[in-house]
Amino acid sequence: MSKKITIGLFGFGVVGEGLFNVLNQSTIKDVTIKKIVAKDKNKPRSIGRENFSFEKDDILNDKSINLVVELINDADSAYEIVTTALKKKKNVVSANKKLIAEHLDELINLAKINNVSFLYEAAVAGAIPVLRNLEEYYNNDLLTSVEGVVNGTTNYILTRLSSGGTYQEALKLSQELGFAEANPTLDVDGFDAKYKLTILLKHAFGVNADYRKIQQTGIRNIKVQDAAYAKEKGYKIKLLARAERIEDGVLGYVTPHFVDETHPLFNVNDEFNGLVVEGAFADRQLFFGKGAGSYPTASAVLSDISAIKYEYKYEYKKTLENNDLHLSNNFLAKVYIGSEFIELINEIPFFRLDEVFQSAEYSYQIGWIDFNELIKFQFNSIPDLSVIFLPEPVVHKNKVHTLAVEKKNYLVSFYNT
Amino acid sequence: MSKKITIGLFGFGVVGEGLFNVLNQSTIKDVTIKKIVAKDKNKPRSIGRENFSFEKDDILNDKSINLVVELINDADSAYEIVTTALKKKKNVVSANKKLIAEHLDELINLAKINNVSFLYEAAVAGAIPVLRNLEEYYNNDLLTSVEGVVNGTTNYILTRLSSGGTYQEALKLSQELGFAEANPTLDVDGFDAKYKLTILLKHAFGVNADYRKIQQTGIRNIKVQDAAYAKEKGYKIKLLARAERIEDGVLGYVTPHFVDETHPLFNVNDEFNGLVVEGAFADRQLFFGKGAGSYPTASAVLSDISAIKYEYKYEYKKTLENNDLHLSNNFLAKVYIGSEFIELINEIPFFRLDEVFQSAEYSYQIGWIDFNELIKFQFNSIPDLSVIFLPEPVVHKNKVHTLAVEKKNYLVSFYNT
Repeated sequence: MSKKITIGLFGFGVVGEGLFNVLNQSTIKDVTIKKIVAKDKNKPRSIGRENFSFEKDDILNDKSINLVVELINDADSAYEIVTTALKKKKNVVSANKKLIAEHLDELINLAKINNVSFLYEAAVAGAIPVLRNLEEYYNNDLLTSVEGVVNGTTNYILTRLSSGGTYQEALKLSQELGFAEANPTLDVDGFDAKYKLTILLKHAFGVNADYRKIQQTGIRNIKVQDAAYAKEKGYKIKLLARAERIEDGVLGYVTPHFVDETHPLFNVNDEFNGLVVEGAFADRQLFFGKGAGSYPTASAVLSDISAIKYEYKYEYKKTLENNDLHLSNNFLAKVYIGSEFIELINEIPFFRLDEVFQSAEYSYQIGWIDFNELIKFQFNSIPDLSVIFLPEPVVHKNKVHTLAVEKKNYLVSFYNT
Repeated sequence: MSKKITIGLFGFGVVGEGLFNVLNQSTIKDVTIKKIVAKDKNKPRSIGRENFSFEKDDILNDKSINLVVELINDADSAYEIVTTALKKKKNVVSANKKLIAEHLDELINLAKINNVSFLYEAAVAGAIPVLRNLEEYYNNDLLTSVEGVVNGTTNYILTRLSSGGTYQEALKLSQELGFAEANPTLDVDGFDAKYKLTILLKHAFGVNADYRKIQQTGIRNIKVQDAAYAKEKGYKIKLLARAERIEDGVLGYVTPHFVDETHPLFNVNDEFNGLVVEGAFADRQLFFGKGAGSYPTASAVLSDISAIKYEYKYEYKKTLENNDLHLSNNFLAKVYIGSEFIELINEIPFFRLDEVFQSAEYSYQIGWIDFNELIKFQFNSIPDLSVIFLPEPVVHKNKVHTLAVEKKNYLVSFYNT
């Protein structure tokens, strides 16, 4: 049996207004928006002013409202709203990945003790139903990895880079098209992808990850030479959020990757998102679609609203089953390091160097690096260094011997004089 | 709360044995296979003979068994087993698309009156969770279309054709690799895809379609010249199962299509499956993965078993909401008709002819055809005629005026003397 849903909506920006329109055109029954609380009193709106309030308690203290839909940008205000709503035993739907990544455990707990639903499908990959599938469908297959292009802005910029031009030009274009913010840091430095990865780690593997401890490298430093290298080799550069079961835990990072044409994400271009779920039995599966935008995001919110009609709750079964599973950095990855400055490249402590290219204009080195060494660098703050992972699978530290080579085969890098 | 599941397994072929292994390696709790009923007493098995029975009542009359998993090939025996099991108030999981397409309404009704679950995620696109998503996630977005590459065998053959060679060569190769049966009719003539489309029509749109009335054209007649045409134009040929909301109902057909590189299914190659779900708000989303094979199929069966632990049932909400929705053939499609014999092409009553190519070896015509005219042909039985739909969206009969051209622009075809 489904129940009547009376919504208090916070936020009437791109997604909030999208939800309003989608609900009006939907065939869903017994769902009404009773109140909308917006921030800006003077902003022109597509619907009459009488529909708005500017006082959050108008929703939070309204006992007839049994669902709070939180679609505002500011994660701190969202925290106030969501925690208060849960404590008042209201169901909550949110699309705020920052809020969720920062406070997931607390919010889950609040929802649990107040016996209400807290759903946030729209927070990861917009309209693509990834969380619901991880919860319900992939709950018994032995998942080995989840990786995705989860940020449309960076994917758009990288797609432009692959057809020539500089990062700055591609960024400007994506700002003109409205894909990137005036201050693009959250996207291009990988914060947005990291928030989403934090949520994925919970639903895919039951891992409670402190999002501040997840290694994140964005795309700001990628140079035309790096894009040219990718093209030469038949790769594309994608900003991947990756989580993978390894011997002593789960790895998790956000970093640019070269992917080859055999990879399901190779054809996820422009502003699209894609997620690849790999299981021991189900093999690799790709979910592809729009990760952002008014209606795609609103449609994910609507699916959550509809699920709440049927009192659906995430069960976090994997957290219960895998409660000893933690993030692990105990692996080596094959990495490309490019720069105009060889001195910078030489700072990187490769465990094994496989390729060295040097020229007067640009140089790169490729080799295996201990991830524990890599995370000592803040690559986002070293604009003259590009760090891009190769397609090769990571190697756990236990198996580091498989990477050893005879001394005589060691490559050494040298200064170009 | 989840309940204990005691399974009676029918069938120990590729999928049944896969399920047995997957269950053994899975972390799922409170699920045991109590009995296995197989057909062939003399077939060598990977596990001891003491695990098998050959009498179906050993499972059906065992009151401790609360779930029958039916993984046999023969749809008629499966019908006996599944209907009996449901009547005995046992939950049922099946992967038998033929059985389900033929008897869906009866089986749904039996499950309902006996208050048990009848799940069959593995019947459509193997490991890809399409039915569950259509039921649970896309239940409120206004779906506009569902289309898919749902048969891996034909997709493998078509992928080979795209790199040269004849249909016969590609078929032979796929038989050697085990993708195609010795008698490939069910796959190559589109039966398998049609069964799956019947099930998709129910879950996507709530349409009860008589599978015998769904237009189906396979790939048997596709010639090297057709593949060469596709290559020239930057198309690939895919056997698509399509369902689309049109003005007076839902269209449904299985037919070869040219798809261009902007289509999400363009990159679904080899034996892979892909499904594109398009909604008014969610835009297009692609689900991609393995549609068949022992472990991928078994993993879908396992997800159904796990859902039954939580007493999950399909609710067929769309059937309730859209119970006036029916299949409609009232549209025109843009179609390529190729043949060595112009006389055959000239049999096709084009509403509007857009391109005519004739040569001594091969000819084709492209134009708009009323679907009601098209279905009068049994193209599977006309080996010298290739029928491939173009990427253009169909046009509803109400809008046929948009296709009209001035008389002087009419193309006429002519015999090549």
